[in-house]
Amino acid sequence: MKFIIQRDQLMAGVQDVMKAISSRTAIPILTGMKIDAKSDGITLTGSDSDISIESYIPAEENGIVHVEQIEEGSIVLQARYFPDIVRKLPEKTVEIEADSNLKVTIRSGKAEFNLNGQDAEEYPQLPKLQTDNSFEIPTDLFKSLIKQTVFAVSTMETRPILTGVNVKLENETLIFTATDSHRLASREIPVKESNGNLPSIVVPGKSLTELNKILDDTEENVEISVTNNQILFRTKHLNFLSRLLDGNYPETSRLIPEQSKTILHVKTKELINTIDRASLLAKEERNNVVKLTTKGDNVLEITSNSPEVGRVAEEISVQSIEGEELKISFSSKYMLDALKAIENDEVKVEFTGAMRPFIIKPANNDPILQLILPVRTY
Amino acid sequence: MKFIIQRDQLMAGVQDVMKAISSRTAIPILTGMKIDAKSDGITLTGSDSDISIESYIPAEENGIVHVEQIEEGSIVLQARYFPDIVRKLPEKTVEIEADSNLKVTIRSGKAEFNLNGQDAEEYPQLPKLQTDNSFEIPTDLFKSLIKQTVFAVSTMETRPILTGVNVKLENETLIFTATDSHRLASREIPVKESNGNLPSIVVPGKSLTELNKILDDTEENVEISVTNNQILFRTKHLNFLSRLLDGNYPETSRLIPEQSKTILHVKTKELINTIDRASLLAKEERNNVVKLTTKGDNVLEITSNSPEVGRVAEEISVQSIEGEELKISFSSKYMLDALKAIENDEVKVEFTGAMRPFIIKPANNDPILQLILPVRTY
Repeated sequence: MKFIIQRDQLMAGVQDVMKAISSRTAIPILTGMKIDAKSDGITLTGSDSDISIESYIPAEENGIVHVEQIEEGSIVLQARYFPDIVRKLPEKTVEIEADSNLKVTIRSGKAEFNLNGQDAEEYPQLPKLQTDNSFEIPTDLFKSLIKQTVFAVSTMETRPILTGVNVKLENETLIFTATDSHRLASREIPVKESNGNLPSIVVPGKSLTELNKILDDTEENVEISVTNNQILFRTKHLNFLSRLLDGNYPETSRLIPEQSKTILHVKTKELINTIDRASLLAKEERNNVVKLTTKGDNVLEITSNSPEVGRVAEEISVQSIEGEELKISFSSKYMLDALKAIENDEVKVEFTGAMRPFIIKPANNDPILQLILPVRTY
Repeated sequence: MKFIIQRDQLMAGVQDVMKAISSRTAIPILTGMKIDAKSDGITLTGSDSDISIESYIPAEENGIVHVEQIEEGSIVLQARYFPDIVRKLPEKTVEIEADSNLKVTIRSGKAEFNLNGQDAEEYPQLPKLQTDNSFEIPTDLFKSLIKQTVFAVSTMETRPILTGVNVKLENETLIFTATDSHRLASREIPVKESNGNLPSIVVPGKSLTELNKILDDTEENVEISVTNNQILFRTKHLNFLSRLLDGNYPETSRLIPEQSKTILHVKTKELINTIDRASLLAKEERNNVVKLTTKGDNVLEITSNSPEVGRVAEEISVQSIEGEELKISFSSKYMLDALKAIENDEVKVEFTGAMRPFIIKPANNDPILQLILPVRTY
C-alpha cells in the first residue's frame, strides 16, 4: 500500500473516524484505525463495535486531486499516535507506505515516521446494510432534531432503553423522542419521498451525540437506512453505522397533558437568564430546584432557597399569563435544557397544576415539545 | 455596609482575588472573600495564608465614578457563589448591602440575592509590610521574567527550596533563577533607582504563576518590597503578598559550563517543531527522550525510538554548526520548555560533550540562559 495525500483532507477524515475509536475496548485491533487504499480513493475506518465510522477521501473531486500515486492495499495503524502525527507534519502533503512486513512509513518534508502496523485482514468486517427502509433529510435539520432531543435521554443504565432516542417515521413525519422519566423532549419534521413507514427504533443517545459532532451544518442530505439491529447514516464521504437498542420504547404520548390550566407566553432568553441566576445558590444539590409563582400584571416570580447559603428572588415581566394562579417547583437544569433546545425567541409554557407535568413549546407552534415533571415541595 | 458599584469593575476585582482563595483551607473563614467599603473605595481580599491578594476599586478614577452611595463597613462572603452571582447579574450596576446580623443583600435590576455573611472581624489581618527594600520594574518585563523561569521549578516536595524561584538584586541587576536539578532557567534585567541590594530570597513558584495570571501586560510599574519572610507586589489597584520559602537556595553558577565544544545556531521555531514531532511517539514515557546528532553541511538529525510503537527521524538545516561532532540525548519536554521561553527567532545552543549539561541562549545575547542535563543512553 502506498499513496500521497493532502494533509488537510487526511486530518479531517482522521478526526471524524477517531470519534468511534476508544482506547478501552475488548477487541485490541479496534484501538487502531484501518486505512484502505483503492485506485479511486482512501477509506479510513474506526469502530468501538457500537459505532463504526468510515470516512472516504476520493482521489479526485471536482477536478481537485486529493490523493496521488496510489498503490492499493490496507493496513491498521495505532490510533493513539496517528492523529497527532498527521496534525504536526511539516508539509502539506503526506506519503504513507506499508510494506509486506506491516511496517508503515509516514513521510512529509524531511520528517519520517516508522510505525508498526497490524494486518487489515484481522480487522472486523463492518456489516453491509441491505435495506429498502431508507429516507433522506437535510443535514442541518437532522442536527436540530438531535440537539433538541438527545439531552433528555437517561444516563442511568437501570432502564437501558431510555438511554436511546426513539425514532419513528409515520405518515411522512419523522419523530424523535427522548425521556429519562423525569422529562421528555420530542420533535417532528416532515419527510417527503420516503419508502413508506419505519418501525419504531431506538438509537443510542451516545451515537447521535457523536454523529452530531461530525456532521457539518449543511443543507445537503443525510441518507438514513435501518435494518432490525443497525442504523446507517450516510453523507457524501461518511458512513456512520450504529447498533440499535433492544427492547420496546415506552408509550410516551399518554404522558402529555391534553388540557392546561395556566398558560404563559414569555421571552425565551429572559426566562433562561432568570432561572440561571435563581439556580446559582443550589449548584451542588442534585436537583437544583427553583420555584415559579404567578403574580398579577403579567409578572412571574422565580425564587430559590438554600438554607445554608441564602435565598434568591427575581421578578420577570412576561408577554401574558392566562388561566389559574400557580406556584410550582421544578429542576432548574431540566428547565434550562428545555428552553435552550427551543430555537425561538418566545416560548409558551402550559401548566395543568403544581403536581402535573408541564409543557414548553416554541410560540411559533413548531412541532417541538418539551415536558418536565415538577418537584413536590411541602 | 452599603454601596452601588459598576458590575464590570467588581467582576475584574473578584476574579483577581479569587486566585488566592481555595476551598480547601485549614481556616474556614479563608474560603470567603472579605469586602471592605470605605468612603474612598472598595477593597476585596482573598487569602490561602500562603498568598494574599487585595484588589482596590476606587470610588472615582479619572473622573469616572465606579462606586456610589458608600456606607462604610466590612463583611466576608462565601467565595464559592459570589463570582458566579456577579457574572450573571442582569444590570450594569450592583447594590451590595450588609446589615448588623451579617445578612447580605445583592441587588441588580429585579434580581435579589440574600446571603449569609461572616463577621469581617474574624478575618485574619494581613501583615503590613514595613520595608526599605523596595524597587520597581515595568509589569510586562516582570511577566517575562516569570514566564522565562518559573516553569523550571521543581514540582517535587523532596527539596522544597527548589519549588521556588530564587530572586536576587545585585549591582542594579535583578536575577531570577529556577531549577529542578535536571534543568535550570535564569534571566537577568537591569533595575535602576533601587534602594541598594536585596538579599537572595526564594519565592514559591505557585505564587509567581498566579501573579503572572493576574497582572496585565502593561508598561506600568510593579513595585516589589521584601521583608525576611514576605514579598509584596504592588500595582495601582492590586496588592499581592506571598510568603517566602525558608532555607538557602543552592549555588547554581558552578553548574553552568564556561567552555563549549559544539555550538549550534538554529531557528527557534524550526527546532521546536522538529523536536515536537520527534517526541510524539514517546508521549506516555516520563522522560520522552530524543537524540540529536550533528551531520555535515549544517544539518542536524533529531530521532526518537519507542520499541513498541516505532521510530521517528527528521533532518533539520541550521544556520551553523561549529566545533566537534556530537550525539546527545535529552528530554524533549525540557528542551521544548526552554526553547519556548526564549523570545527570539534564533537560538544558540552550546554543548560540552554528550554527558555534560548544555546551554540554550537567544542569539541576540539577551541575558536569558536555559540549561539542560542530558540523558544517558547506552
